[in-house]
Amino acid sequence: MSDPELRLDFDRRQRTGLAEAVYAPGKSPAQCANAVAGLLADGDGPVLLTRADGQQSAAAVAANPGATSTPAGTDKAGTELRTLTWRAARPRTGTALVLTAGTSDLPVAREAEAVLAAYGHTTTLVADVGVAGLHRVLDQQENLERADVVLVVAGMEGALASVATGLTTAPVVGVPTSTGYGSGLDGVTALLGMLASCSPGVSVVGIDNGFGAACAAVRILQSHEEER
Amino acid sequence: MSDPELRLDFDRRQRTGLAEAVYAPGKSPAQCANAVAGLLADGDGPVLLTRADGQQSAAAVAANPGATSTPAGTDKAGTELRTLTWRAARPRTGTALVLTAGTSDLPVAREAEAVLAAYGHTTTLVADVGVAGLHRVLDQQENLERADVVLVVAGMEGALASVATGLTTAPVVGVPTSTGYGSGLDGVTALLGMLASCSPGVSVVGIDNGFGAACAAVRILQSHEEER
Amino acid sequence: MSDPELRLDFDRRQRTGLAEAVYAPGKSPAQCANAVAGLLADGDGPVLLTRADGQQSAAAVAANPGATSTPAGTDKAGTELRTLTWRAARPRTGTALVLTAGTSDLPVAREAEAVLAAYGHTTTLVADVGVAGLHRVLDQQENLERADVVLVVAGMEGALASVATGLTTAPVVGVPTSTGYGSGLDGVTALLGMLASCSPGVSVVGIDNGFGAACAAVRILQSHEEER
Amino acid sequence: MSDPELRLDFDRRQRTGLAEAVYAPGKSPAQCANAVAGLLADGDGPVLLTRADGQQSAAAVAANPGATSTPAGTDKAGTELRTLTWRAARPRTGTALVLTAGTSDLPVAREAEAVLAAYGHTTTLVADVGVAGLHRVLDQQENLERADVVLVVAGMEGALASVATGLTTAPVVGVPTSTGYGSGLDGVTALLGMLASCSPGVSVVGIDNGFGAACAAVRILQSHEEER
Amino acid sequence: MSDPELRLDFDRRQRTGLAEAVYAPGKSPAQCANAVAGLLADGDGPVLLTRADGQQSAAAVAANPGATSTPAGTDKAGTELRTLTWRAARPRTGTALVLTAGTSDLPVAREAEAVLAAYGHTTTLVADVGVAGLHRVLDQQENLERADVVLVVAGMEGALASVATGLTTAPVVGVPTSTGYGSGLDGVTALLGMLASCSPGVSVVGIDNGFGAACAAVRILQSHEEER
Amino acid sequence: MSDPELRLDFDRRQRTGLAEAVYAPGKSPAQCANAVAGLLADGDGPVLLTRADGQQSAAAVAANPGATSTPAGTDKAGTELRTLTWRAARPRTGTALVLTAGTSDLPVAREAEAVLAAYGHTTTLVADVGVAGLHRVLDQQENLERADVVLVVAGMEGALASVATGLTTAPVVGVPTSTGYGSGLDGVTALLGMLASCSPGVSVVGIDNGFGAACAAVRILQSHEEER
Amino acid sequence: MSDPELRLDFDRRQRTGLAEAVYAPGKSPAQCANAVAGLLADGDGPVLLTRADGQQSAAAVAANPGATSTPAGTDKAGTELRTLTWRAARPRTGTALVLTAGTSDLPVAREAEAVLAAYGHTTTLVADVGVAGLHRVLDQQENLERADVVLVVAGMEGALASVATGLTTAPVVGVPTSTGYGSGLDGVTALLGMLASCSPGVSVVGIDNGFGAACAAVRILQSHEEER
Amino acid sequence: MSDPELRLDFDRRQRTGLAEAVYAPGKSPAQCANAVAGLLADGDGPVLLTRADGQQSAAAVAANPGATSTPAGTDKAGTELRTLTWRAARPRTGTALVLTAGTSDLPVAREAEAVLAAYGHTTTLVADVGVAGLHRVLDQQENLERADVVLVVAGMEGALASVATGLTTAPVVGVPTSTGYGSGLDGVTALLGMLASCSPGVSVVGIDNGFGAACAAVRILQSHEEER
Repeated sequence: MSDPELRLDFDRRQRTGLAEAVYAPGKSPAQCANAVAGLLADGDGPVLLTRADGQQSAAAVAANPGATSTPAGTDKAGTELRTLTWRAARPRTGTALVLTAGTSDLPVAREAEAVLAAYGHTTTLVADVGVAGLHRVLDQQENLERADVVLVVAGMEGALASVATGLTTAPVVGVPTSTGYGSGLDGVTALLGMLASCSPGVSVVGIDNGFGAACAAVRILQSHEEER
Repeated sequence: MSDPELRLDFDRRQRTGLAEAVYAPGKSPAQCANAVAGLLADGDGPVLLTRADGQQSAAAVAANPGATSTPAGTDKAGTELRTLTWRAARPRTGTALVLTAGTSDLPVAREAEAVLAAYGHTTTLVADVGVAGLHRVLDQQENLERADVVLVVAGMEGALASVATGLTTAPVVGVPTSTGYGSGLDGVTALLGMLASCSPGVSVVGIDNGFGAACAAVRILQSHEEER
Repeated sequence: MSDPELRLDFDRRQRTGLAEAVYAPGKSPAQCANAVAGLLADGDGPVLLTRADGQQSAAAVAANPGATSTPAGTDKAGTELRTLTWRAARPRTGTALVLTAGTSDLPVAREAEAVLAAYGHTTTLVADVGVAGLHRVLDQQENLERADVVLVVAGMEGALASVATGLTTAPVVGVPTSTGYGSGLDGVTALLGMLASCSPGVSVVGIDNGFGAACAAVRILQSHEEER
Repeated sequence: MSDPELRLDFDRRQRTGLAEAVYAPGKSPAQCANAVAGLLADGDGPVLLTRADGQQSAAAVAANPGATSTPAGTDKAGTELRTLTWRAARPRTGTALVLTAGTSDLPVAREAEAVLAAYGHTTTLVADVGVAGLHRVLDQQENLERADVVLVVAGMEGALASVATGLTTAPVVGVPTSTGYGSGLDGVTALLGMLASCSPGVSVVGIDNGFGAACAAVRILQSHEEER
Repeated sequence: MSDPELRLDFDRRQRTGLAEAVYAPGKSPAQCANAVAGLLADGDGPVLLTRADGQQSAAAVAANPGATSTPAGTDKAGTELRTLTWRAARPRTGTALVLTAGTSDLPVAREAEAVLAAYGHTTTLVADVGVAGLHRVLDQQENLERADVVLVVAGMEGALASVATGLTTAPVVGVPTSTGYGSGLDGVTALLGMLASCSPGVSVVGIDNGFGAACAAVRILQSHEEER
Repeated sequence: MSDPELRLDFDRRQRTGLAEAVYAPGKSPAQCANAVAGLLADGDGPVLLTRADGQQSAAAVAANPGATSTPAGTDKAGTELRTLTWRAARPRTGTALVLTAGTSDLPVAREAEAVLAAYGHTTTLVADVGVAGLHRVLDQQENLERADVVLVVAGMEGALASVATGLTTAPVVGVPTSTGYGSGLDGVTALLGMLASCSPGVSVVGIDNGFGAACAAVRILQSHEEER
Repeated sequence: MSDPELRLDFDRRQRTGLAEAVYAPGKSPAQCANAVAGLLADGDGPVLLTRADGQQSAAAVAANPGATSTPAGTDKAGTELRTLTWRAARPRTGTALVLTAGTSDLPVAREAEAVLAAYGHTTTLVADVGVAGLHRVLDQQENLERADVVLVVAGMEGALASVATGLTTAPVVGVPTSTGYGSGLDGVTALLGMLASCSPGVSVVGIDNGFGAACAAVRILQSHEEER
Repeated sequence: MSDPELRLDFDRRQRTGLAEAVYAPGKSPAQCANAVAGLLADGDGPVLLTRADGQQSAAAVAANPGATSTPAGTDKAGTELRTLTWRAARPRTGTALVLTAGTSDLPVAREAEAVLAAYGHTTTLVADVGVAGLHRVLDQQENLERADVVLVVAGMEGALASVATGLTTAPVVGVPTSTGYGSGLDGVTALLGMLASCSPGVSVVGIDNGFGAACAAVRILQSHEEER
């Protein structure tokens, strides 16, 4: 009963503009290290290991030096997670604005920022602009007008997505987070709220999915480049 | 198998400040008319018949003249519903501000307005101030400062409750409505959003429950009077 | 108890690139006609009336001639709905590819197409490329490569979003539909499936929300123009 | 990738009558300490740190002496939480009655009591008056008549809210708790029960949200003072 | 493709004390009539047809004279339903008390009453004793003490089950009903509330299942007889 | 805005052993007729139109004579549906046993029987063997031993799947139906019950999905033939 | 902020036939010990402490000697729980049959058995008679006929309740348990299955609620005695 | 209160082709060892212990030497689980193809493989062929054509089941897994997606239920043998 071979998706970047990333949960440290090594051995694009715990990070970095490491919050058991990047792309045009409603949403925003950085895009990250104090998001009017794409990272009721979308012409991707008390239902309330938003044009990714939101943003920013 | 006697709760107003109201759905027109007659025959406070369809309204008014009638939207089958009031209280101090996010939320707001009027309270009703166009609610700053209690009636993601609560010192009661597309889940999204609101101090009633929200407001406004 | 004034959001287009649209459900035919008239009287951008039934359409067109009308499926009660457009924008660059998994998804796709057309964008609409017959979506490889933005409209399990996203570098917006048998749960299954997609970079709008998906696409396409 | 600045909402108390509180979960001990320090440095109202674990409490108190500390139950992982108050307001008029159905609901009631105390309001806390032994709540008739606002803290089926609301003219805020066996669904049953209450005029906050309920009560009590 | 034969469960009464009943929904009028005829042709116990609409009732009675017919509310489409009984048992000892929280719960209570009557048991039916006016259920103290089994039929939050169970030594069967506003969730709230009841010893049947509750009561009452 | 061409999946039968079927809901009568015509014009296998209402059936048969038509119950609005078959396969080896728990489950069983017949397989259909009268399913012991595949069609709690699976060596496919009272949750209870079955080896299709269950059975029966 | 006094419900036994039990979760060991002491000091009936962990048990027994202790499974965190009884009633007539579907359901059955024993009733406990091997429950035919009340304790799909109820004239109380794989949904599947049971007359208590089921059984058995 | 005897289902294999397996969770190590011993002492078929933790495995092997042990992932608390087999059947004809969407799905696939091996069937296990990189599953075309039965093990949106089913004539059993981010809802999304699959003929087992899927496959493969 030998191990089935790892089936890496080497040409994914050519096909989709995004290289395959290694999603750490459920993989052994050795599997993480091997998957990263396999992707580094092939082509020359960025390589990402997401949601890695301490042992997975250590194994991957020991086998594959030269990684940039960013905190990405904790899993349900309280284990600290990290995003690791190898061979980040050179800086490119296209700026993402990432807004968070509260401080607790920062880890998800950080994951998005790390993925955008891996693809060469600069992020303006502004935390703690929840709508309970409306002036905080109104103060971001200029940033909202300048951004090529906006990511709104918010838990609880997720109202920031509706408000921010009403203040910008840019594409907006909502990222519901599992932040907040019981009735936030671990992010389901924010998810539903963003999907049912009264502001037209916001689209949404899964709960706490900073990685996916950044990939959506990279697709938008890359399509700008292709236009030119 | 004779009909069990109607068990009206005659002294409810003395006990709770709110007379028993007759909730029409599931009652025959004759049962509606009789229940109203029973309550009118007892004491001298306001009498309400809520969510009555055309036949129920007609029977109740035929048997008990002198009602004020207000539209209260439609039920799921599209039947038009009304709120009927007999023997409304004389005007009292205490003003409620009722905000709605959209035009579709008006029937629920109207039900609340009718119940408040039955107890003698004036309502300022401002429709269509959803957060997609933030200036609309910002224009209500003065009303928000002046109100003794604020009712926020909103469907979709219900974000107006969070924004309005952040702009007033008054008590705020959120009324989620079943307005909106599929992901509004017939009001569940707005309900969850208001319960998980990032603005502290908003409390919430059931979906489309304009009657209950008005009762909560009457309790607050009456407790002011008692203070003096 | 006079009617509260209609509070139209006249400068929304300047603020967000998208003019306010009139969402018909819950409005009387006269309210629809008046709202459209109000928006036409102000500025010169496109004006949309969405999900209008026959009476709402007729009233709006009688009061405001010159509309383009497109079918937009039926509501739960089986009433036929339409999207109406006045003063569509002149053709602009930027092409959207709209894929549907089945024929039953067409009304939602049509709503998206109508909104995109109102803003001057051309749509390539390809129906019936569900993954049960994989060659059908593989045949769209060229369209997928050429598109500036892709909308995937699918009910049942929504797998087309994952497959199509894996075949293009363009931004992809998923639109879950309420098509399909009991376990589709009126679109919830497709919604969850798209949110949990294994293909990174797909973002999602609410169930059957062709309007919202088109607005997201317009934001992406307009941000291209601003770049230049 | 430096830390985004903390964006405290300094003028929230002027705007809403309630100063910003620091919600500890998801913040590091140092972030908690800094946020409290920032709020203390600004203005002169009460400052609250809610749901703080031992390390967060210790760091906040070490950096900011003079706090009052109250137990606030445990989180899901069993960690003991506390509410900390700095610079509590001087005693004011207005009394809240807080009823709990069982002993297990006490931590949530305690959180509410601590927040009310921070704003200068006296609380009468009566535990263990669940409706299985009806005489216990009937014994509270006098307290119910005297209270300016009533908070009902109950898990399981939350029936105490319906019963207590039927016995008082005061505003009633229901606080569903996650107390109880499997079918309590971690508070969802009590939440739904309070929202669907047959007693008109109860409004509800999120599950276990003693903080939010107290804020709603403070809004009601403060609006009394303004009246005079 | 001939019709598969009807497979009636003739000896069910011997095995379980309860004869097979014919559940009308989904059966044609002819199938209803035939099933009743089949059961009447076999043995000598009571025969029931439940939730029959007008056509089903008419066909069953035309083919099988001598039925007693009782209203059993309406289905979701508003069709009036009835319970029909043939060959009711002679009166037996054992009395059931059926309490309803509101008038709208009567049809479900009536279905239970009809089934109990078919098995020879007397029912005391007391409607409209919801806990919002607590004196109404307290007035039933004597009935509660005298009953051999109590059925509590209640929608909304179902709190009557908890209160009544705390006032009697008898077995209590809760019947949640789909009565009430949006947050009653068509009976799910009452169902969960009864299952999570703080009063020990209440057991519950499905939503609106007056038939099932009566069967549970018949089992309890029959087991008394066997004892002697 | 011309109609996008119909994209029929002509070679599906070669690929999967099952020809494409036309799912009627959401298609116009003309679209149904054309889709059937397209499939008949291609190859020589069976062609199916499922869940067709009266108008869809009539249009399809008028344009494509020679269909066999079988009742398939009603949709939620009460419209009668039918399964239509053209060019059924010649009789083949392999027998399916279809058990239903109640008479109300027959339409779903009939849909499965029609699909199996289209592929040449004989079905033994035994209705009304629910476990409340256990002897009824025990009487099917011989049929259970002889069958090549068993389909269990059951609503309510779906217990028949567990019991039947414990009495046979054959593959068992469970088909939950939306039959039954409120707590059946329109088939979700039966679905969950079959998925959580204590009898190992039952697999399940979607609610009311007689078509899908038959397709699973055809795959199993065809794989027998290939073996030989 | 002194501790609110413990409000024990001393006369509950007289009112309901069941003394108040102390539910340990959420109480400190000292609170458990005091509550038991308070109840022992009053009257002479049985006293129960349920779901106590090791520390709670030890404190309660140290302060109140003479307890009988029975295992009651583990909580979600894996802590072992126990039922403790002081001053059990003398043996009375009335026998309960407790059936479990699997070995894993034993702790819940044991809790029920301990509560029944505290009230003087003998229990016949038969484990592992799940319907996958039908002969096991058929072997219990005699026990089923002899029992005065039957408790069916089952997880997974809970089909044993339907089967057992079809084999006895006795009252049947279903106890869904959180036993089983993912689709058992921690007992929700068994709960729904029992509520939707095709066997008339089964009533149900909350998930894993052996205590509540035993209380329901005690009510039934005591009502027998009163009859005589 | 002695332990109720273990009620092993010795003749299950004769009746269903599958011997009883011992499901470890909730059993003590001694109970596991005894149950295995009991089954080994009876007959000569394969004996399985599933989802055993380290202590359960050790006890069972110590008491019953000669087991084959395979990893089966971890439970929610992170404990490593294993499948143990005694007395595996001799190799038989019939090959299962097991596909997994990702590496994280391997433990569930391994459980299925171990159960198939116990019954003498060879498995081809191919991991990591998720549809984000479509060529990976297209590369399995030959395996898909050759297999007698296909198991698709996938989390997230479970789209692999739809795609694979569209590429084979073999019976396909879907196994949703709890792999993936928040919106995967611990496997519910994949479960719903597979049930609502647009590819006809896939049937599904419960979440993470590799054992059940293998049993379904064994039933299919054994029915082939019987045919001959």
